[in-house]
Amino acid sequence: MTYCVAIHVDRGIVFASDSRTNAGVDYVTTYSKMHLFTPQPDRLFVLLSAGNLATTQEVINRIQRDLEDPHAQTSLRTTKYLFEAARYVGAMNSSVAHEHTDELQQSGFNAEATFILGGQIRGHPPAIFLIYPQGNYVSASPETPYLQIGESKYGKPILDRIIDPTIELEDAARCALVSLDSTMRSNISVGPPIELSIYPTDSFQLSHRVSLRNGSLYFASIQKQWNIGLREAFDSLPPFDWELGENG
Amino acid sequence: MTYCVAIHVDRGIVFASDSRTNAGVDYVTTYSKMHLFTPQPDRLFVLLSAGNLATTQEVINRIQRDLEDPHAQTSLRTTKYLFEAARYVGAMNSSVAHEHTDELQQSGFNAEATFILGGQIRGHPPAIFLIYPQGNYVSASPETPYLQIGESKYGKPILDRIIDPTIELEDAARCALVSLDSTMRSNISVGPPIELSIYPTDSFQLSHRVSLRNGSLYFASIQKQWNIGLREAFDSLPPFDWELGENG
Repeated sequence: MTYCVAIHVDRGIVFASDSRTNAGVDYVTTYSKMHLFTPQPDRLFVLLSAGNLATTQEVINRIQRDLEDPHAQTSLRTTKYLFEAARYVGAMNSSVAHEHTDELQQSGFNAEATFILGGQIRGHPPAIFLIYPQGNYVSASPETPYLQIGESKYGKPILDRIIDPTIELEDAARCALVSLDSTMRSNISVGPPIELSIYPTDSFQLSHRVSLRNGSLYFASIQKQWNIGLREAFDSLPPFDWELGENG
Repeated sequence: MTYCVAIHVDRGIVFASDSRTNAGVDYVTTYSKMHLFTPQPDRLFVLLSAGNLATTQEVINRIQRDLEDPHAQTSLRTTKYLFEAARYVGAMNSSVAHEHTDELQQSGFNAEATFILGGQIRGHPPAIFLIYPQGNYVSASPETPYLQIGESKYGKPILDRIIDPTIELEDAARCALVSLDSTMRSNISVGPPIELSIYPTDSFQLSHRVSLRNGSLYFASIQKQWNIGLREAFDSLPPFDWELGENG
């Protein structure tokens, strides 16, 4: 399993992903699910991946090959709009998965992968897209300024409460870390290191990219402080009326 | 969809459930998913239900019929142990679902239901059981003192952080309300009123049973205070090192 989230606020985009991959419970490994492409100074793409590892790797490899091929008809270098890049990755995703679907299904496996593509091409605003296994995509909106792939439910409530388009990038990044922490506590197949990238609008480079291991000082302090804060929030919830009666 | 949770702590059991039922998005209704059985003074059962409404209603009806039949071989009146009651409800659940499985599957529906049965029979400690559509069951444990059915993921992180066997029943009840609130915010098919029952160990009666509508004063104050507390917890998270640098 996997959990990746991208948050698009006015000031830019935050990307976060876990790094645990498993084929059954007895083959658990660590792979980065965050891929950065900066083929030209006028554009930056971050791709987050979930699902079949072979499919995601093949998609990444083909994207890279197209970038190195000066004659490639379409690549992340040639797309004029971000949604065209999403269509390009989507078509590739669907085609790679189809190659292996029949054989994998016979063995009880699933070839599908899901991606989040985010970034900016000069002349257009930044955006994030969720790319489905079938190749189509949806983008985030001001009302729902984030996208998730993989094990998304445990980490959704905190996003719904905290994220709005006006917040600072660092606050969005902290919210992503809390969202990942909640997910890792509830689903053992989502695990560290957590990769975190921050893209400020119109900068065409990541301002920060960090990899936080479980023992890392900052992540440990986030986890500890969040636990303390939640406990305080819980302890300040109002009493039931019969508890008041008992004290009165 | 549905969300029900039962929390078993040293001082007793807390049961909570939403009340929304839907057959598609254009047929949304309200049904209680919390059923109380007190056939004799030496025993009390609370049954929470999720899944196919017809199946859950038929199971409840049969349980009631067996209780009214003085010659019934097995009923909630005759079981000596709580796990026997779980087996009894499980066998009934599986058999009711099987009656309709084939026809429902042809129409693309699912006959399955899942239950949580909790309570106490005198001479034995209280317990809670999750009863699967196949009729088998699992009980909670001191390490995992709660059980959930239905849309369980959104509301799980707060349970994992707050619940331990030593807490007060009212704290467990507040935690259940927060867990339901988080779920209702993220999944529109889980909705009010929230029913909440509190069973103190060895009392053989519910100390409190309340139904909280969305506009209810207490539930609104829980929602508001929890939002404020979460925001405060979030605002007190430690800054990234580069944020410190900017201020220094």
